[in-house]
Amino acid sequence: MTRSWWGWGNIEDAVSGAELRTLLARVRALTPGDLTEHEPPDIASLGLREPRVSAPAALAGLCSAEPADRAAHAHGKAFRDVVRNLHGDLRHVPDLVARPRDERDVTDLLDWCSGEGIAVVPFGGGSSVVGGVEPRFDGHPAVVTLDLERLDRVLEIDRTSRAARIQAGVFGPHLEDQLRPHGLTLRHFPQSFEFSTLGGWLATRAGGHYATLYTHIDDMVESMRVVTPSGVSASRRLPGSGAGPSPDRLFLGSEGTLGVITEAWMRLQERPRWRAKASVRFDDYPAAVAATRAIAQSGLHPANCRLLDAAESLINAGVSVGGGVLVLAFESADHPVRRSLERAVELCRDHGGEPLADPPGGSGGDAGEEAAGTCGENSARDSGGGASGGSAAETWRSSFLRMPYQRDALARHSMIAETFETACTWDRFDALHRAVTEAARQAMREVTGAGVVTCRFTHVYPDGPAPYFGVYAPGRWGSTVSQWDHIKAAVSEAIEAHGGTITHHHAVGRDHRPWYDRQRPDPFATALSAAKAALDPAGVLNPGVLLPAP
Amino acid sequence: MTRSWWGWGNIEDAVSGAELRTLLARVRALTPGDLTEHEPPDIASLGLREPRVSAPAALAGLCSAEPADRAAHAHGKAFRDVVRNLHGDLRHVPDLVARPRDERDVTDLLDWCSGEGIAVVPFGGGSSVVGGVEPRFDGHPAVVTLDLERLDRVLEIDRTSRAARIQAGVFGPHLEDQLRPHGLTLRHFPQSFEFSTLGGWLATRAGGHYATLYTHIDDMVESMRVVTPSGVSASRRLPGSGAGPSPDRLFLGSEGTLGVITEAWMRLQERPRWRAKASVRFDDYPAAVAATRAIAQSGLHPANCRLLDAAESLINAGVSVGGGVLVLAFESADHPVRRSLERAVELCRDHGGEPLADPPGGSGGDAGEEAAGTCGENSARDSGGGASGGSAAETWRSSFLRMPYQRDALARHSMIAETFETACTWDRFDALHRAVTEAARQAMREVTGAGVVTCRFTHVYPDGPAPYFGVYAPGRWGSTVSQWDHIKAAVSEAIEAHGGTITHHHAVGRDHRPWYDRQRPDPFATALSAAKAALDPAGVLNPGVLLPAP
Repeated sequence: MTRSWWGWGNIEDAVSGAELRTLLARVRALTPGDLTEHEPPDIASLGLREPRVSAPAALAGLCSAEPADRAAHAHGKAFRDVVRNLHGDLRHVPDLVARPRDERDVTDLLDWCSGEGIAVVPFGGGSSVVGGVEPRFDGHPAVVTLDLERLDRVLEIDRTSRAARIQAGVFGPHLEDQLRPHGLTLRHFPQSFEFSTLGGWLATRAGGHYATLYTHIDDMVESMRVVTPSGVSASRRLPGSGAGPSPDRLFLGSEGTLGVITEAWMRLQERPRWRAKASVRFDDYPAAVAATRAIAQSGLHPANCRLLDAAESLINAGVSVGGGVLVLAFESADHPVRRSLERAVELCRDHGGEPLADPPGGSGGDAGEEAAGTCGENSARDSGGGASGGSAAETWRSSFLRMPYQRDALARHSMIAETFETACTWDRFDALHRAVTEAARQAMREVTGAGVVTCRFTHVYPDGPAPYFGVYAPGRWGSTVSQWDHIKAAVSEAIEAHGGTITHHHAVGRDHRPWYDRQRPDPFATALSAAKAALDPAGVLNPGVLLPAP
Repeated sequence: MTRSWWGWGNIEDAVSGAELRTLLARVRALTPGDLTEHEPPDIASLGLREPRVSAPAALAGLCSAEPADRAAHAHGKAFRDVVRNLHGDLRHVPDLVARPRDERDVTDLLDWCSGEGIAVVPFGGGSSVVGGVEPRFDGHPAVVTLDLERLDRVLEIDRTSRAARIQAGVFGPHLEDQLRPHGLTLRHFPQSFEFSTLGGWLATRAGGHYATLYTHIDDMVESMRVVTPSGVSASRRLPGSGAGPSPDRLFLGSEGTLGVITEAWMRLQERPRWRAKASVRFDDYPAAVAATRAIAQSGLHPANCRLLDAAESLINAGVSVGGGVLVLAFESADHPVRRSLERAVELCRDHGGEPLADPPGGSGGDAGEEAAGTCGENSARDSGGGASGGSAAETWRSSFLRMPYQRDALARHSMIAETFETACTWDRFDALHRAVTEAARQAMREVTGAGVVTCRFTHVYPDGPAPYFGVYAPGRWGSTVSQWDHIKAAVSEAIEAHGGTITHHHAVGRDHRPWYDRQRPDPFATALSAAKAALDPAGVLNPGVLLPAP
């Protein structure tokens, strides 16, 4: 397999053949855009700026100035990143890509860069969709991207406490491969799972598998090691503590601005032995939301609780409903969970929900339970929210994993296809949902004439959901980035105005800064800036992320 | 009821009569100390230093210079505080006690103090056991203790999201009184519940009712308002977010050093409708620990899961066992929990546990379920860990609530009676437990000749327990503080050496500083100091707590 420099994942997995024809046929039915296919440019044609710096001899062996390397580290994997790559628009590329072999190398690289004022962009899997790894700043003589892919091992396993010491640069599948022989799993499966790393998850407070309870990676952290320009921060392995403000919580979500996470002790799970799942249809969306809220507040703690609205159900799960489909699943390594599912389905029925009668193999309608023999053995299968619910859910899950590839295919055909997400309290959801949907539609009317907005919940909490929106609109080749930026600004304003967070699990990066800056309490900005100045006095760490570039 | 200035709680609730005779008889059987009773001094005899400052006219109405007020705000409620009060040893007292009526008053008071360099000690219920409210520092012209008791209202309730906006100065019972008409509860019941406040819980990351899942108050916070000398920090109400490092997590555990918490939106619970409980005896302590670990890792999420060792079982639950007693309880507002309890008991049996056959009324042995009609109606009943398990648990629970009062009675009779707590991963527990117990015994041999150490788990996590130790030894009147300090230093060294945290939920204050400073990663100390200097440039907020006094 070969990683794509310009788009998602592996080149060999790109959408083609029948899948492409089906996708384009569906788009044609939906909207009247120009679907001419555009090829990605050759790297040789990009005309990248010559590196402005060369590493000192002792570090030269860790550093690459290869154009392909630099191009592949210039952008994240947002729609706007992919499109700019397709246009050969790489204005900001790192001068060097450094690949430390160990923590000592990280320290040495940071020392060198701090001494020279060279900006450092920590880089995990590079799947940022918020400009988090793009060196989009001036004021530094050069930029080194610190790619941690060599720090890819599970160093230690504590079976008794169910925890492991894990290097930050390990990708999802390789991490699970190393845990599997011990019967353990992190069970953190973001959509980016295959192409993102533990360190990236920690630095961005990633959201994973569990729809309830352990939604963000934060809660799975026992301790962390972080190399800062002012020394290594090593917290103690603790199951819980009340000794002052949590050190880990300062570095979680710091997005490479305070230090480079090199390893962490992570809390693990047993692989599930019982699973039960169902998909429930609703004719009425508010009723579906109310049912989802009832489950979120029930203390049943489903592993999956994903409400797809009607558009999402149709486009990605192949189910035509008036209100939506709620995909429910429970799992446990210790005890049967069928009764929990039954109670959740009962709560759905209280709100007019009807379990989908799935074809043979599905188990939606009768809340069946299965021994989860293969559960977790194929992490890709799990990454769509883990245990799924019947064939609607199966369809949705395989669609979920293909989404980034399909997004790239659509981008090559001038379509705008992107997602954004938030979280808000339940009392505000209706107004936020209406406002965001209307803002997206209005913005699409302005820039593309038409388009579709979908919404699903990726995670739910007792006090509110995390809605995740999809936008699909026919764009104009050469303008789809600015068209998307117009839409994104409009929906971000709506989110901000209706009490949502600018991001539930996509991080802040550079693209969310205007709204993050308004959301963040000023005294906390003061404290964070002071902490940053103390830990990174040269101001070299990921300038412009979270805080203004110097 | 009249609050005691020198000891725990209300004067009318002090141990006396038959309870005192029983207590002293039990002590006499245990140890041969001198049990002469000592009376607390009159406040008039304390000879408090005259206030060094008077408030400006605009703030004078908020401030008290009454000796009784100042004396009652000089110390927390640790054993060493109570004993020093009994000896009339009040070296550090606030010059004034200020009681702001609203946030504006808090801002004005902070402005005045910052301008004059007057130290400010934020004060909730004053139940600190770590010197957190004691103005034990020099270098400031005066000290004002900011008592938030007037900020005692629930301002807003969001029934849909199950959350409430609550002022920080409200005491536990008054908070629950205001929530009860809405069918909601915070269900945060620390042992100090009756005499501690929401703001105190937040500032110290208090531990409450739930033995699993929502152990610390941190997880119940939706948003906070904090008045800092550099402005008001107001975070957004969010069920979850990934927008940068969590602002709330910086202020949670800041113990009054970064600002004064004035209100918070808190996540609430429905009052439980189902409860099931059991007490399980073990002949072997390691087996009891293993069973508790199995339950903590099962995903069953008991509300109570409190392992009492043999000494704790005997002294406080009246049960004679070789290994220990595990008090288990499940509760839910949505669904029956009997099967969860049955599975937990099954896990206990796997490790040799036997459910206690309780007398009529108890339901330990048969894992019975009861409609929790009165549950939560009497918050005092709940504060011993909520739903209990049979009569051993009942005994333990009423004992739990009397403990601070009995501690005071023992202190008046020259006994050393105090607790301390930690948390560690399961792999380290055996060694830590042995080392801490041995350190306590050795220290007691050195200073008192003998004594008893008990251990219980207050909270358990999938990756480790939070053990809570009790120490009971005959002291020498006039020396019990230094005797206790010797023991405390010895056990703290053992905790530190064996990978525990210096505190799981008692906070750091001034007394835990030597071990906290070693536990805290240096770069985090750098960051925290910088944040403090930025938010509190005059360095007036609770000097000496968490960080060195200037």
